[in-house]
Amino acid sequence: MVSSDMIFLDAAAGEPMDPVAREAYLAALEDGWADPDRLYHAGRRSRLLLDAAREAVAEVIGARPDEVSFTSSGTAAVHAGVLGIAKARARVGSRILTSAVEHSSVLHAADFAAPDGSSVQVGVSSLGRIDLDALAAALSAGPAALACVQSANHEVGTVQPIDQVWQLCAEAGVPLLVDAAASLGRTDLPADWSALCGSARKWGGPGGVGLLALRRGTRFAAANPEDERERGRVPGPVNVPAVLAAAAALRARQADRHSVAARQRPLIDRIRATVAKIPDVQVVGDPEQRLPHLVTFSCWFVSGEALLTELDRAGFAVSSGSSCTASTMTPSHVLVAMGVPSLGNIRVSLPWQAGDAEVDRFLEVLPGLVESLRESAPTAPPAQVRSGDVADGYGPGVLVLDTLGRRCPIPVIELAKRITGVEIGQTVVVWADDTAAKLDLPAWCELRGHTYLGREPVPGRPEPALAHLIRREH
Amino acid sequence: MVSSDMIFLDAAAGEPMDPVAREAYLAALEDGWADPDRLYHAGRRSRLLLDAAREAVAEVIGARPDEVSFTSSGTAAVHAGVLGIAKARARVGSRILTSAVEHSSVLHAADFAAPDGSSVQVGVSSLGRIDLDALAAALSAGPAALACVQSANHEVGTVQPIDQVWQLCAEAGVPLLVDAAASLGRTDLPADWSALCGSARKWGGPGGVGLLALRRGTRFAAANPEDERERGRVPGPVNVPAVLAAAAALRARQADRHSVAARQRPLIDRIRATVAKIPDVQVVGDPEQRLPHLVTFSCWFVSGEALLTELDRAGFAVSSGSSCTASTMTPSHVLVAMGVPSLGNIRVSLPWQAGDAEVDRFLEVLPGLVESLRESAPTAPPAQVRSGDVADGYGPGVLVLDTLGRRCPIPVIELAKRITGVEIGQTVVVWADDTAAKLDLPAWCELRGHTYLGREPVPGRPEPALAHLIRREH
Repeated sequence: MVSSDMIFLDAAAGEPMDPVAREAYLAALEDGWADPDRLYHAGRRSRLLLDAAREAVAEVIGARPDEVSFTSSGTAAVHAGVLGIAKARARVGSRILTSAVEHSSVLHAADFAAPDGSSVQVGVSSLGRIDLDALAAALSAGPAALACVQSANHEVGTVQPIDQVWQLCAEAGVPLLVDAAASLGRTDLPADWSALCGSARKWGGPGGVGLLALRRGTRFAAANPEDERERGRVPGPVNVPAVLAAAAALRARQADRHSVAARQRPLIDRIRATVAKIPDVQVVGDPEQRLPHLVTFSCWFVSGEALLTELDRAGFAVSSGSSCTASTMTPSHVLVAMGVPSLGNIRVSLPWQAGDAEVDRFLEVLPGLVESLRESAPTAPPAQVRSGDVADGYGPGVLVLDTLGRRCPIPVIELAKRITGVEIGQTVVVWADDTAAKLDLPAWCELRGHTYLGREPVPGRPEPALAHLIRREH
Repeated sequence: MVSSDMIFLDAAAGEPMDPVAREAYLAALEDGWADPDRLYHAGRRSRLLLDAAREAVAEVIGARPDEVSFTSSGTAAVHAGVLGIAKARARVGSRILTSAVEHSSVLHAADFAAPDGSSVQVGVSSLGRIDLDALAAALSAGPAALACVQSANHEVGTVQPIDQVWQLCAEAGVPLLVDAAASLGRTDLPADWSALCGSARKWGGPGGVGLLALRRGTRFAAANPEDERERGRVPGPVNVPAVLAAAAALRARQADRHSVAARQRPLIDRIRATVAKIPDVQVVGDPEQRLPHLVTFSCWFVSGEALLTELDRAGFAVSSGSSCTASTMTPSHVLVAMGVPSLGNIRVSLPWQAGDAEVDRFLEVLPGLVESLRESAPTAPPAQVRSGDVADGYGPGVLVLDTLGRRCPIPVIELAKRITGVEIGQTVVVWADDTAAKLDLPAWCELRGHTYLGREPVPGRPEPALAHLIRREH
């Protein structure tokens, strides 16, 4: 895509602007540059264009035009929606229920709106699907301001059962905000919601446009300084040319969604099948109830950052939920909530034009890269191996692997290498301060049939240092 | 400008995008579309472009790059700046001092951040210049979170004495937020500020970009859900192509500011001199300490809406602070604070390319339009004239003009027509419920040398109905 020497497979992070959107933007720079609130001709013309864009977006999402507001980003839409509904319903209750795998903008908005810690994260299955029983329990545990459940997960592609979620929320009388950013332009959309959010960058529109739709009757009180624009729901001027471009792209993508999905679903199936054949690679997310264009997998014993770097060198742009690829050095909260490994994690999301050629090339290159990274992996000196002694508080025969100060994937690599050095039934202790170890060590034990006994403080060392106890089972 | 059949004279509402900006935008759609936080090549390239844009803007405003954040609009910049500084300094004090003629986004942000009514509006002179003594008094009246004073007024063009304002704030230890939206790209900028805000639409950049600069050492705590972008100051992704376009336009405009000002200042002088010769037209704002490209005047006995409409028909796009042109039906708070008339109010602000041709044409057309509107003005039936009687509570000889339910300029027209019908020294009472009458009746009395005695309730009628008492003096 875009440049002949790069294959862009990170559509979920924002696609290049669609040609349809670009054309609409340029046309609107001529006809829609004026402030739509002005009374003169150029202003009225902008207003007409903005009205037309609003109608087009409303039609795509199954809403009335007066239910649709434009924001400056998907993040801004989520913030305005969560905070505005929470404020309007503050007297009913302050609790905000979310799935544990919502986009960080939703989780952060919920934490902000419910600063007393009364936001509740409902767990998900290992496939990333929201636990409906847990949601029902949370809804009946007391009054709630709102619930937020995504249409589909942006990292692993799992589609959420919004119809059932809506049913539960409706029965409880709690409004439902659906973050549809991962689905808009890609799949059919849920019919029932109180608020629906999206981001134009994710559907081939320009940057700087988000969508906040509010069903009539949804109580809302803007949680920002007064502003008369967009029915008082969203502050700041509407960027008319960008909104027109966003509407044009959404209409085009949504019209083509079935044909693009029919083309790309088999491509993703092929990636899933091929990477699953690479030793110690685990595909995560629901294999069936999923977005048509997105797949995520983790590669044991490989650093996500190294894999990203090598793929970049080979001309592929992909994304990763590994801790070593985040500024916070923590693994993706989505993978954590699913309890799946974050090591060597790669997300592939196909731009709508991507086809066989891009996927073929990716699958040609990936297995060799993973293999060579594994061969060259522990370039750093091996972990300091200590046999347990009384000073450590561990009994005799316990093997202590000290990987303090070493990043992923070293703790898992060391464990895998050394566990056969103890007797079956004996314990290995891994000291680690990489936060990903909390996720990856238990996941590896489950995969390999050893028992993860738990974790405890490392003698004399503060968190994040932790001692992970593993029993060899075979 | 833009289309051959329209002369656009409302640059202060947002100009058409500058060709330089458009070119930068299109180039960045190719090279800067990717998320700048991504580790792959396209992401790193976006990051480099964003860094370059930040450096360019920092250089223009005399700041360090790490002091500059990009927001989604000027409104968003003001909101983030005011709320973020107020939050960080909440323990020091909650009062927010503003001039009474700040942009509504500043006043609304101050009201939002200081909801207990502890925001203080410092008055201005009849030329729109902040009252420095009043500011000093407000600063010494108790601790304050921050002060907000614009570099220049967006409606009347008066330049504020930011150097002196800074001095007073610095002595009081109170940070100063300068809304420079009206000045950026047009004039030299103030050297000293704690925060500086602007809007790219006002300097020929694209919609969807605002500027928030924070001097190092200014305490700031983002008043929005957590977000790691833009140093945590502003939520949501940065729209890299739009930011590059904004930076290109700002650099070009700021480089040309002196030559454009040298060309446009005499044009504005000519408008000032010409409209002042039209009977009963009053130019408002400082004649010297002013923006080079902007002038505002009010035309007695004319409706602002009618004047805008006629100018629009004649092919001119201008703006108005008259109450009848606002959705709220209240006159511009700037004109109210200055105590100047809002009737038939027109703001002319020249786009940077505008020259003699546009101004000549405007000055050819305007006087005739004002005259013909005045001739045709009271198309509605004349105000109900009642002689005062005991039931009204007014003494004998008092003339009561009932203009309830009639919009501006009817109350002033009726007063001007009928005041000569009472004896000198006698009182005329004007009943009016148009909120502009509160501003325009006293202003007309001052202009004509009659005495505005004050206002009181209309017997048996709730506000906004008011009885205005005027004594004929000559």
